[in-house]
Amino acid sequence: MRTTTGWQSTDGSTALQRVPIERRELRDDDIAVRVDYCGVCHSDLHRIHGAFGGGGTPVTGHEFTGTVTATGPAVNSFALGDRVAVGTIVDSCGDCAMCQAGQENYCYQGATSTYGGTDRIDGTPTQGGYSREYVLREKFAYRLPDGLDPAAAAPLMCAGITMWEPLRAAGAGPGRRVAVAGLGGLGHLGVKLAAALGAEVTVLSRTPDKADDARALGATDLLVSTDAGQLERARGRFDLILDTISAPHDLSPLLGLLALDGTLSVVGFPIGEIPLRIMDLTYGRKNLSSSGTGGRRGTAEMLAFCAEHGITADIELLPSAKAGEALDRLDRGDVRYRFVLDLSDLG
Amino acid sequence: MRTTTGWQSTDGSTALQRVPIERRELRDDDIAVRVDYCGVCHSDLHRIHGAFGGGGTPVTGHEFTGTVTATGPAVNSFALGDRVAVGTIVDSCGDCAMCQAGQENYCYQGATSTYGGTDRIDGTPTQGGYSREYVLREKFAYRLPDGLDPAAAAPLMCAGITMWEPLRAAGAGPGRRVAVAGLGGLGHLGVKLAAALGAEVTVLSRTPDKADDARALGATDLLVSTDAGQLERARGRFDLILDTISAPHDLSPLLGLLALDGTLSVVGFPIGEIPLRIMDLTYGRKNLSSSGTGGRRGTAEMLAFCAEHGITADIELLPSAKAGEALDRLDRGDVRYRFVLDLSDLG
Repeated sequence: MRTTTGWQSTDGSTALQRVPIERRELRDDDIAVRVDYCGVCHSDLHRIHGAFGGGGTPVTGHEFTGTVTATGPAVNSFALGDRVAVGTIVDSCGDCAMCQAGQENYCYQGATSTYGGTDRIDGTPTQGGYSREYVLREKFAYRLPDGLDPAAAAPLMCAGITMWEPLRAAGAGPGRRVAVAGLGGLGHLGVKLAAALGAEVTVLSRTPDKADDARALGATDLLVSTDAGQLERARGRFDLILDTISAPHDLSPLLGLLALDGTLSVVGFPIGEIPLRIMDLTYGRKNLSSSGTGGRRGTAEMLAFCAEHGITADIELLPSAKAGEALDRLDRGDVRYRFVLDLSDLG
Repeated sequence: MRTTTGWQSTDGSTALQRVPIERRELRDDDIAVRVDYCGVCHSDLHRIHGAFGGGGTPVTGHEFTGTVTATGPAVNSFALGDRVAVGTIVDSCGDCAMCQAGQENYCYQGATSTYGGTDRIDGTPTQGGYSREYVLREKFAYRLPDGLDPAAAAPLMCAGITMWEPLRAAGAGPGRRVAVAGLGGLGHLGVKLAAALGAEVTVLSRTPDKADDARALGATDLLVSTDAGQLERARGRFDLILDTISAPHDLSPLLGLLALDGTLSVVGFPIGEIPLRIMDLTYGRKNLSSSGTGGRRGTAEMLAFCAEHGITADIELLPSAKAGEALDRLDRGDVRYRFVLDLSDLG
């Protein structure tokens, strides 16, 4: 076994403890990655607060960048010193229809989550990127393109791909109107990606105070979602709405903003059941959709697109010892727009 | 005013009464239609039972065929004696984005329903096709193609177009797998249309007893939706499911049958709210959609397609005096697959 160090919630609180973590010895197709930067995702908070169920809280963190420090004998895509990026999954069955379609994230056997999962070979629980080293199959690591800042690129691996997939599925591009509901870690990347794809982008926000930010990110407009008049005037306006709001909420006002054949993509992962009136979909032949991160093909495509367009997250970089503070501030919405942990303080 | 005769529920029951109905004198762009055949739709039953709210029950019936008996001076698409078909709407604003897109059924000002609506010019309530004569703008009447039996074609105007729109929106055709949940008035036309479009069609039914019917209609298979093993084996199988079930029901089992990017189109118009777990859409990037009948362009396209492929409804034809019996049997599910009223008994 290899041993490294990480930050873990041992009591369901955000007072993370510095703990030793065991990593497996490298298998033939494994690489070891020195984790340099790891984004702080709302899912980490969900997990620590126990919303996803399951016993105990693993070391969280599933959007990180780092440097290859060791390679198994069968590794042929990476060499020592390569810059890599890792996202929310680190393995999948490889055989099912989803894996064959390049959507390993939806693997019918269950993709192996970067943390909180179970290794497919030795059955050990996976521990995430709030740690100094990670070991994974090379197949699920991505080369970090030149020119992308490794700290600001880390959130691309969860928040970025979570925005990219529905944008691509809906054909976002020139002549299409995209709205982004909620301007947080996901939403601000949604705005950047949609604008770079050529779509006309509007931010939907409860208050107008983010209007300048929205425009700086590439949006042409901000609609105040609590202003009934503004909503009424925007009826039928959008081909796609990326709904990044994580709390359960009424979908009806957002559905009212969709154009014919438009899609409301709910990607803030609200937990539990949401009451839906089918009639809200009927008039205008509207779609309600959702998706979760992406597969290998889409992730590589997203990274190449971000490199081409110079897109990374707007981040606040903190030493990893402040992970708990980052989680608390994220819980209060006090972040513009993504916390990234610098793991170098773990030595 | 013109006077005709129809069948109306005067007490919220299905014991319909023979009543006189006033029809307007023809405006310049109006035609008068002698109603020959009118389908019996589940919506009629909803309306009579008061599920749609509103005061009083109009004369129902919104899928009918007939013969032009008079034309206003500005009418240029129809002549006396022409065979015509009329569906669920008889007017719209003509100016909004939906009307401009050819989807008058979603008119932002509210399309004028064939019954239970309000005429846009004189403000009178509209009365439906369980009657011997109907007066409407020529724009919302369709030429009934040669070769289509007028009785069996009547249900195309609501049930048929309600199936056609989601099939077209989802690109149903060769290489696509379509399932139809519920083999009733809508569903049996969904099977015929999907098969004629070249899709591979499966019927989802609570019991296996409709397997022979399903194959006769063009399906290659019937899945018993109460058989967990069959559902498990069909996981991820369908690109489109047309869900024609009218009672509120759990969508989760159906969503589990969708392939990547698949669509569950709920077109049985369940009333009220349905609890939805967004996660059921997430894994597989699935879509939940709905639509209601169609616009002028789609309806004309659907009729031409049906004429080309010889598609009409499988019907049980009853004299209009038995409308109440038809409604009662429909309520019990005792119909294969659509009742059509022959209005000639009204003289």
